[in-house]
Amino acid sequence: MGRVYNFSAELATLPEEVLARVEEELTDYKGKGYSPMEMDPSGEEYARILKRAEASLRAIMNIPQNYKVFFLNGGAESQFAAIPLNLLSGHKTADYVLTGLHAKSAYIEAKKYGDIAIAASSAGATPIFSTIPETKRSSFRPDADYVHISFNSHIYGTKFNYIPDTGSVPLVANMSTYLFSEPFDISKFGLIYASAKDTLGISGLCIVILRDDLLSTANEFTPSMINYKLIAEDRTSYNPPPVFGLYMANLMFDWILSNGGLEEMKRRNERKASHIYDYLDSQSYYTTPVDKKCRSTTNILFITGDAALDKKFNEEAEAEGLINLHGHESLGGMCASIYNSMPYEGVVELVKFMKKFAQENPKLDG
Amino acid sequence: MGRVYNFSAELATLPEEVLARVEEELTDYKGKGYSPMEMDPSGEEYARILKRAEASLRAIMNIPQNYKVFFLNGGAESQFAAIPLNLLSGHKTADYVLTGLHAKSAYIEAKKYGDIAIAASSAGATPIFSTIPETKRSSFRPDADYVHISFNSHIYGTKFNYIPDTGSVPLVANMSTYLFSEPFDISKFGLIYASAKDTLGISGLCIVILRDDLLSTANEFTPSMINYKLIAEDRTSYNPPPVFGLYMANLMFDWILSNGGLEEMKRRNERKASHIYDYLDSQSYYTTPVDKKCRSTTNILFITGDAALDKKFNEEAEAEGLINLHGHESLGGMCASIYNSMPYEGVVELVKFMKKFAQENPKLDG
Repeated sequence: MGRVYNFSAELATLPEEVLARVEEELTDYKGKGYSPMEMDPSGEEYARILKRAEASLRAIMNIPQNYKVFFLNGGAESQFAAIPLNLLSGHKTADYVLTGLHAKSAYIEAKKYGDIAIAASSAGATPIFSTIPETKRSSFRPDADYVHISFNSHIYGTKFNYIPDTGSVPLVANMSTYLFSEPFDISKFGLIYASAKDTLGISGLCIVILRDDLLSTANEFTPSMINYKLIAEDRTSYNPPPVFGLYMANLMFDWILSNGGLEEMKRRNERKASHIYDYLDSQSYYTTPVDKKCRSTTNILFITGDAALDKKFNEEAEAEGLINLHGHESLGGMCASIYNSMPYEGVVELVKFMKKFAQENPKLDG
Repeated sequence: MGRVYNFSAELATLPEEVLARVEEELTDYKGKGYSPMEMDPSGEEYARILKRAEASLRAIMNIPQNYKVFFLNGGAESQFAAIPLNLLSGHKTADYVLTGLHAKSAYIEAKKYGDIAIAASSAGATPIFSTIPETKRSSFRPDADYVHISFNSHIYGTKFNYIPDTGSVPLVANMSTYLFSEPFDISKFGLIYASAKDTLGISGLCIVILRDDLLSTANEFTPSMINYKLIAEDRTSYNPPPVFGLYMANLMFDWILSNGGLEEMKRRNERKASHIYDYLDSQSYYTTPVDKKCRSTTNILFITGDAALDKKFNEEAEAEGLINLHGHESLGGMCASIYNSMPYEGVVELVKFMKKFAQENPKLDG
């Protein structure tokens, strides 16, 4: 099969230009006679790409000087314990907003380490988690050590349509499946973190950006590998970030920068998302269960309303080179994940297929 | 420059055949139209390669059925806290043997979580950590929850020349820089772990093999990402191992199996190590600071005795395509790391260069 369009929610497709570059350098990185996979983690070149990745990330996201940037091993889940273990420094209280399975998983993990409350939740929505709850400053305890949100849910297809006002309480956000999709004001957050696999297509790498004043508060039992203060002091000698992941991060950052940065990513992503949502809103064969005002721009959910037809849709789409459109195992249905690297042509092909499938498979009750 | 010989201690060189395979599949994995980097972590192919990696590892290492195998994110340091947090289940005591910086680092981390003692140490040796201390069963507390050793030190060039007798106390070993270099009897150990970067050349992947009876003892504060019991129950939904790392692990396991397995790796590694050690023992220009009876087979230390000459050696070797021969930053000198993928030709070239360098750079006092 030729190059497919890969709509995976959990691992972004990569730009063809980036893949071509990796292919070109794979056995000889910059004429040095070794593969980028073989770069010595104690060497100068590794130090250079680590520094370069940070500089590019700061440029792309306009990160203020009083924020630290970490590249760590693992996915976003690797920070579910790290956040309370580093940030529960005052009254050992934190407030979580529940908007999906990952938000809930982060909440359950935090409960081991302090007095953790649910400040707001969309678990009671119909369908479950199909919207983002409204919050105001009074939703949160004013003496909480932090407030935690999950900004975008690839499982439920939602995105926060506002940044919660938490007053002086630091706002912590899991931005996996959202980061790099559009510009936003980092200074509104105390800490943001994201798995690099969802939006950058790099598995095993996690990005953490945190404000300096949140650094020195880890309790004595925090494992060193997730102690932000230690990481800030010495990122390379203790559980250093993976060589090939950092190499890929540099390629992806270069790609974002040379393609117009986050303003242009936003424009492209909105164009792609609109192409699908406009079609969904124009017909009745497919429905999308998500509250219109907080639809995700990166993960677009839709169903036929018939599980057998959904299954057929996924199988036939797969056969036509439109792969990984299946929804989360807990929900079924379809989820089109259209991160930065998904070209516009991919969503054009998807909508074409959706139309064809609807025509060829009339519903019995329709 | 053509293909170099990469003697990095921290990240093994890769076999050329494996690199060629990656290059071949990089943009089209098995004709599926996507890169192995783009494999959906919730998909069937990922589940298949995870299962296949475990089966191959079990075959290569002859792992008994009552042992679990985990592929995790990060390096060996990621387990320094995990081990006490999972295994300190009885008297909350453990005994550590100090044989280098990583062993010490593991010990310091464990001290946060229980009554941790130094059962034996080679810190007092001259030079420091240049030997492996002898131990007997009475060296260890009989009621300890476990005994921890670091089997091979790439920094100090040593390898345990025996498996400590700990009686009924589980023996835990960091086998980074040793694993896959030769066969050994896993049933002597309660838990072994290793970073895959040193010996397999895969950064960001850690292998843990543990006996079933050690599974259910994690305390309630153990972060889920390092809770062995949870990992055993569900390896793929919480912080799943990196897609590309697993892909590479399969290629490396296939390579080991098709090259004769660990018996043949042992034969090759001993042949390579002997070629260097025999030369070192035959002359006086270079010395090796390591106690002869516990010399590492994978990491061979040598010095000229003159820091300026050592520096010159490393620079000129680098220029001739023999790279990353520098010793650890704390020691200086040279360290030739000759993991499985280093061909015999590489050490032949190294010894040739050592001879030439000695001839061209006579010492002032010699």
